[in-house]
Amino acid sequence: MFVEAESDPVLPKERFKAHETRLRTALLKAQYDLLGRADRSVLIVVAGIDGAGKGATINLLNEWMDPRHIHTMAFGEPTDEQAQRPPLWRYWSELPENGRIGIVFGSWYQALLREAARKQPNADAIETLATHVRSFEAQLAANGVQLVKLWYHLSPQAQAERTKRLLSSPETSWQVTADDRKVAKKFARLRSAAEVALTHTDVPHAPWTIVPSADEHVRTYTTAEALLQALRRRKLPRVAQPRTPAVGRARTPDALGKLDYAVHVDKDEYDTELALLQGRLARASRSGGFRERSLVLVFEGQDAAGKGGAIRRVTQALDARQFDITPVAAPAPHELARPYLWRFWRRVPSHGRIAIFDRSWYGRVLVERVEGYAAPDAWRRAYGEINDFEQQLADSGAIVLKFWLAVTADVQLERFRERETSPFKNFKITPDDWRNRKKWKPYAEAANEMIARTSTRDAPWHLIPANDKRHARLQVLRHVVEAMEAHI
Amino acid sequence: MFVEAESDPVLPKERFKAHETRLRTALLKAQYDLLGRADRSVLIVVAGIDGAGKGATINLLNEWMDPRHIHTMAFGEPTDEQAQRPPLWRYWSELPENGRIGIVFGSWYQALLREAARKQPNADAIETLATHVRSFEAQLAANGVQLVKLWYHLSPQAQAERTKRLLSSPETSWQVTADDRKVAKKFARLRSAAEVALTHTDVPHAPWTIVPSADEHVRTYTTAEALLQALRRRKLPRVAQPRTPAVGRARTPDALGKLDYAVHVDKDEYDTELALLQGRLARASRSGGFRERSLVLVFEGQDAAGKGGAIRRVTQALDARQFDITPVAAPAPHELARPYLWRFWRRVPSHGRIAIFDRSWYGRVLVERVEGYAAPDAWRRAYGEINDFEQQLADSGAIVLKFWLAVTADVQLERFRERETSPFKNFKITPDDWRNRKKWKPYAEAANEMIARTSTRDAPWHLIPANDKRHARLQVLRHVVEAMEAHI
Repeated sequence: MFVEAESDPVLPKERFKAHETRLRTALLKAQYDLLGRADRSVLIVVAGIDGAGKGATINLLNEWMDPRHIHTMAFGEPTDEQAQRPPLWRYWSELPENGRIGIVFGSWYQALLREAARKQPNADAIETLATHVRSFEAQLAANGVQLVKLWYHLSPQAQAERTKRLLSSPETSWQVTADDRKVAKKFARLRSAAEVALTHTDVPHAPWTIVPSADEHVRTYTTAEALLQALRRRKLPRVAQPRTPAVGRARTPDALGKLDYAVHVDKDEYDTELALLQGRLARASRSGGFRERSLVLVFEGQDAAGKGGAIRRVTQALDARQFDITPVAAPAPHELARPYLWRFWRRVPSHGRIAIFDRSWYGRVLVERVEGYAAPDAWRRAYGEINDFEQQLADSGAIVLKFWLAVTADVQLERFRERETSPFKNFKITPDDWRNRKKWKPYAEAANEMIARTSTRDAPWHLIPANDKRHARLQVLRHVVEAMEAHI
Repeated sequence: MFVEAESDPVLPKERFKAHETRLRTALLKAQYDLLGRADRSVLIVVAGIDGAGKGATINLLNEWMDPRHIHTMAFGEPTDEQAQRPPLWRYWSELPENGRIGIVFGSWYQALLREAARKQPNADAIETLATHVRSFEAQLAANGVQLVKLWYHLSPQAQAERTKRLLSSPETSWQVTADDRKVAKKFARLRSAAEVALTHTDVPHAPWTIVPSADEHVRTYTTAEALLQALRRRKLPRVAQPRTPAVGRARTPDALGKLDYAVHVDKDEYDTELALLQGRLARASRSGGFRERSLVLVFEGQDAAGKGGAIRRVTQALDARQFDITPVAAPAPHELARPYLWRFWRRVPSHGRIAIFDRSWYGRVLVERVEGYAAPDAWRRAYGEINDFEQQLADSGAIVLKFWLAVTADVQLERFRERETSPFKNFKITPDDWRNRKKWKPYAEAANEMIARTSTRDAPWHLIPANDKRHARLQVLRHVVEAMEAHI
């Protein structure tokens, strides 16, 4: 795999010059074409042997193209804030807007390369890390992020010579870092780690290019050509869709239809029970154990199902300083210019904090599906993307609970009418609500399929009959309290 | 000042109930009116004696109003990322969008209160801290952020009783924090600190309301009324403009006109000098000393003055992983929905990093002034706001340098024509450039006034004659190198 790169090929200066003008002009033009595109960004992953001249090459690209539309990101050891979120959080947060080019140093390959470079690499750990990488890249690619992955490589001899040459002059010696000097020792191990990492993650929608780096002209030429080809692709390669669970629409169980909507709780029982549950929640959320965890609550349900009321019964028991409520409406332009989940990744809570979503990322497979805002491809893909997102939250220590508050059509109608006449509530009813009501059946189908496809062990759906508000509120609180107490 | 609050007034439940319906309806309506406003947000500052029930009151407001449009922020000790920026950075970053309500716990009063609560408070330190607070709030208020500042207060006796009462029942004891138990000891000192802080910062555009907190009805009523009055104001109070230096337009010196545009550097001298300066810059930016500082470079100048080329000569010497270039264009909708400087605050670099602005916040007093995008009030105010922003950067350890690359009109014309015919450069010329050129004189006037008003000791303007690109590039590099070397 590295045979060509380790032969340290050379491109004579004159031959390089013959290409240079063409490449510069073409790259610049391609960059400007990209700028006009609302549906695509480019993300360049820079990795490779230390001291192969990665930084210098990226500087050159910045020089050849318009650097104002290129954003270079460098990630080292995670900061405090990063360490409290899933490992991919920091990459998600900085995704370039459509039309832009991002360059990533210290990418999501760090953990995989580190594991593969151990003296006794663990095959299972490698497989797991590689799966995460593949799944992240598949999601980016499917959402309009074109990946250009560059591995800078050269022979150990060339590496040693380059270091020596740079060190020989005070004008260039600053280009040699402490890491470069150590590279010779770890060359063999890094080489075999790279082989493992690259073969596990070389896929049509996110291919690796190995860049021979001993000669600066070959290095520049290969980098520029790889980027140019990527920029010139008219259509992104189709991403083979991974692991959507096999729930056919015809066989989707009518989970909402089977709920017992007659359940009822008396006022006295409610008052007593509410105080007890809120007390337990108050203690759990203020406990020492919760300082190492976070809580993510998702509220979905029909209009007027009582999401707001249920949320308030939860927040009453919380310290106002520790939670955030995110009301989810239609995305803003700068949110539309990134992969769908970007705006939710930005709201992932740090330790000790609680993020409450009043509607959520499930809009993709509910309103966007039913109203046709998302193409069928996009919302079908979203099930897997969402499961993956929630699994990452759970793996990083978040307790994830999802509630569907379910009312029947007649109770919804009652509440709509009540809202129209109450001074506290008439702001809650809009023409949209009446329009959505007409699509009751497609919404129910979408909800049932969503529940079937996205209820997972670590992020379960709780279906709450909500014709009786008191019952629904107690149920929600009970699930939250029990999950908190079980985890801390 | 606290006499009324410390008399622990009481509002009987029945009288409170008589107000409750009116207040809830009115607050909700006012919140929805605010939501429709593109020019105003509301920021509630919550402070006061520990254990006065601040959290409970804010929970109640969230319950009375629509919590989806209220964002509660709690700031404790600064995190790593926050500690590397100016103290106000974290507050700037989280300003609510126009139309929304933000609630801040742990506000920018923390430092002032802490200083004022010391055994031997330092009057100068208090004055300085209070000046920062006033200047921040003046800027917010002038930019459409309506401030509601609430100080929760009660008598020491009432405080002790409240703690005792809450502790007596297991259902309420969780509401008492460790801090609450200590409050009695420090009551007198916190009280006098509050007196100092409040009198120093009680201004018409950001008034304090003292909320008597012994009785929950009085507390709720006073909070709700204060918020309601603020929401109902049709116009925000005018902010008296602080300390704009006295440079009359008539007397603005023609700094640009006085530059020597004939300076010239030969190719040989340029090549030698460039390599030397880049080497020095490379070493300085990789030095240990720079890990405790950051660098902010601002590039302004006429179109085609060579900003991009000068920036590239700087970045060539830098590690691609340590800098960010921000090209500044017209603001996006979510940026327009916040105070003008918000989007620049978000780009403030952490330690060891370099932020390069290709055009900048000076757009306010250049293009926005000349083209009439900003009202005269807004751009005149901006001089002071900008000076204040840059001073905060410098105070937090940033090295701030600003370059005006100056060309004469004939050289600009030459370059425009050259751009139109070069394959690498024709992307750089647009109809806008030709339009701006027709307004050469108003732009020059604006630039001269800007230079006069915003060149400060810690953030100086460097005016660089740029008819000769080589001269300009060396000059820029030299200033950067010298500033870096002087500071680290």
